[in-house]
Amino acid sequence: MTTVTLLDDASLSPEARAVFDDIRATRKTDFINNFWRALAHDPKTLRRTWESLKEVMGPGVIEPKVKEMIYIAVSVAHGCNYCIHSHTASARAKGMTEEEYRELVAIIAMASETNRMVTALGVPVDRVFEAV
Amino acid sequence: MTTVTLLDDASLSPEARAVFDDIRATRKTDFINNFWRALAHDPKTLRRTWESLKEVMGPGVIEPKVKEMIYIAVSVAHGCNYCIHSHTASARAKGMTEEEYRELVAIIAMASETNRMVTALGVPVDRVFEAV
Amino acid sequence: MTTVTLLDDASLSPEARAVFDDIRATRKTDFINNFWRALAHDPKTLRRTWESLKEVMGPGVIEPKVKEMIYIAVSVAHGCNYCIHSHTASARAKGMTEEEYRELVAIIAMASETNRMVTALGVPVDRVFEAV
Amino acid sequence: MTTVTLLDDASLSPEARAVFDDIRATRKTDFINNFWRALAHDPKTLRRTWESLKEVMGPGVIEPKVKEMIYIAVSVAHGCNYCIHSHTASARAKGMTEEEYRELVAIIAMASETNRMVTALGVPVDRVFEAV
Amino acid sequence: MTTVTLLDDASLSPEARAVFDDIRATRKTDFINNFWRALAHDPKTLRRTWESLKEVMGPGVIEPKVKEMIYIAVSVAHGCNYCIHSHTASARAKGMTEEEYRELVAIIAMASETNRMVTALGVPVDRVFEAV
Amino acid sequence: MTTVTLLDDASLSPEARAVFDDIRATRKTDFINNFWRALAHDPKTLRRTWESLKEVMGPGVIEPKVKEMIYIAVSVAHGCNYCIHSHTASARAKGMTEEEYRELVAIIAMASETNRMVTALGVPVDRVFEAV
Repeated sequence: MTTVTLLDDASLSPEARAVFDDIRATRKTDFINNFWRALAHDPKTLRRTWESLKEVMGPGVIEPKVKEMIYIAVSVAHGCNYCIHSHTASARAKGMTEEEYRELVAIIAMASETNRMVTALGVPVDRVFEAV
Repeated sequence: MTTVTLLDDASLSPEARAVFDDIRATRKTDFINNFWRALAHDPKTLRRTWESLKEVMGPGVIEPKVKEMIYIAVSVAHGCNYCIHSHTASARAKGMTEEEYRELVAIIAMASETNRMVTALGVPVDRVFEAV
Repeated sequence: MTTVTLLDDASLSPEARAVFDDIRATRKTDFINNFWRALAHDPKTLRRTWESLKEVMGPGVIEPKVKEMIYIAVSVAHGCNYCIHSHTASARAKGMTEEEYRELVAIIAMASETNRMVTALGVPVDRVFEAV
Repeated sequence: MTTVTLLDDASLSPEARAVFDDIRATRKTDFINNFWRALAHDPKTLRRTWESLKEVMGPGVIEPKVKEMIYIAVSVAHGCNYCIHSHTASARAKGMTEEEYRELVAIIAMASETNRMVTALGVPVDRVFEAV
Repeated sequence: MTTVTLLDDASLSPEARAVFDDIRATRKTDFINNFWRALAHDPKTLRRTWESLKEVMGPGVIEPKVKEMIYIAVSVAHGCNYCIHSHTASARAKGMTEEEYRELVAIIAMASETNRMVTALGVPVDRVFEAV
Repeated sequence: MTTVTLLDDASLSPEARAVFDDIRATRKTDFINNFWRALAHDPKTLRRTWESLKEVMGPGVIEPKVKEMIYIAVSVAHGCNYCIHSHTASARAKGMTEEEYRELVAIIAMASETNRMVTALGVPVDRVFEAV
């Protein structure tokens, strides 16, 4: 039920192929997931997105596993089923334990609950929470 | 602009007061933020919410700072301004550095971007991402 | 912080004035809230929206107070602060008690919590829940 | 397409089994829907969620059928397909007529429409809508 | 997985049939998509929705193709898979090129990214952006 | 109520200053809006975001005014008040007329209404809407 076809390797433009090559080299696997195959119709956006993702999700001060867990949290709140599945798989591949996953789901749900309470009640921000 | 008044300590029911006492004891501070003062009109929900929060955000396998960062991610995706401010303050109080915060914001934004691309394109979940 | 000015009565087009007259007659009050004053720049949409609202929120099988409570629930989930405030005021004016309001907030929050759990886990719809 | 397996009765931990027993006794049916089977991997969260749900959705001042209708409204705004289906089934089981259901859908849609108009125009909250 | 059955032509009430006739005449096709078949259980809402849609999406100052593209943008942000598919088909039928579609998806995603950055940081509206 | 301070020109790092210089040169104005001043704490993300925005919102097949209108649509659905104000100002600066703006608001609202109807009813995607 895509709005575009999923491109197989034989149908790629040279620029899209170059991005796929870099995805494969970076991830050390031949597997390319459907997101990139759908995005490959637009090589410019494919490249920009992949480069941004490498920068944001690559080495930094937050550990890779935790980065994926934050990605899951956002994807759940946005209701993106594909993203939830792909990043849950990534988080597990990067070491997220089932116990960490259970806590993650509980935190996402708890935050959703209090988010909506606060919004319903129109609670004003306490002075102490503001940046000077 | 609340839909209810914010209760001061003198206006609390005995049950609400008991919850406030526990919040103060648990957090080792006399300060009670506005969320609890708005929720205090409903002592039963106040108690349940505080007990759940203690369970979910208390000691576990995910470190406290990271729990707050996940809370921020959800709150941003839900557009809860109060929650964003209170949990950003909490995350900082629990040790989140400014560099971690910058990465957090970048991840939330990146996830939002790809979430909407995936949704627009209707990308089907790859078989390998499904739980057996 | 509107993107358009709020029109006072002297600035209305004849068509917008006619809608304001009907709002006043229907609600039996001279007061026109800001939403209609912002929308009055577009008399056609003003009319269609008011007519639709009268049809949807007018007499039916669901009692007026409950209709407003459902409106609040949607407005909270969409994070519309103005709508939350105006419909909470309407619900109270139509008889919602503070105890009903407290239960309403608790239900909205609970639903938000389980909504996100279900979404995180990707739970498939049970057969028995589908319409034949 | 779950991120976890759905646990059958034979795979439950003793604590999860106890919760399932209480769900069955409370609902007076042997049927356990998929949500609980997915959540059962985390007995602590399973218990807390079920206890909260019993408290929030149990006897109170809002009638059970209306509670389910509010739950549906929130679930629609959050785009939770599973929740929409399960709570629409529950609302019908608790007496929601098809005419009430039609009005419910119309209200949810109408609220969504005006929510977004208000947000687009940045309408400021009228003084009279604020709690003193 | 609908919550209501999809009505075939033989099952329509006279009022619903009249709306279907108008949809067919207006669109110059015999095809009626599933949305209207689900909504046909409620002839009053069916009529109001169709009349509103004709007014909003009909001839105006924004060209039809662009109207559909805006519809897609909203549907993506709301996560409505059906709406995304039906309006992407409509936009293409009204002349949206694949290059325009690619730019559309990129804009939607970019807006989502900066929306969430702004929300996370709590950026105050610049004076110059406010309507006088 | 930001979570970070808004950096004035004197407080910028050299890399952030270079981005500000490019924003000023590209937009042919000395004015830098608050979004960039909040983001300037993170020069790397500032640069990436600005470069992406230039690519996505710069010359293409969709006219600049329409690009801003799509941006507004997404921002409304996400409830980002700042973004709504800044992009409504941009759209007007790029030629959006008040009549186009009124149609835009009506389309956003109409899409929101049918999005939620479709979601409530769980309407399945028609075969003809799927990409081959």
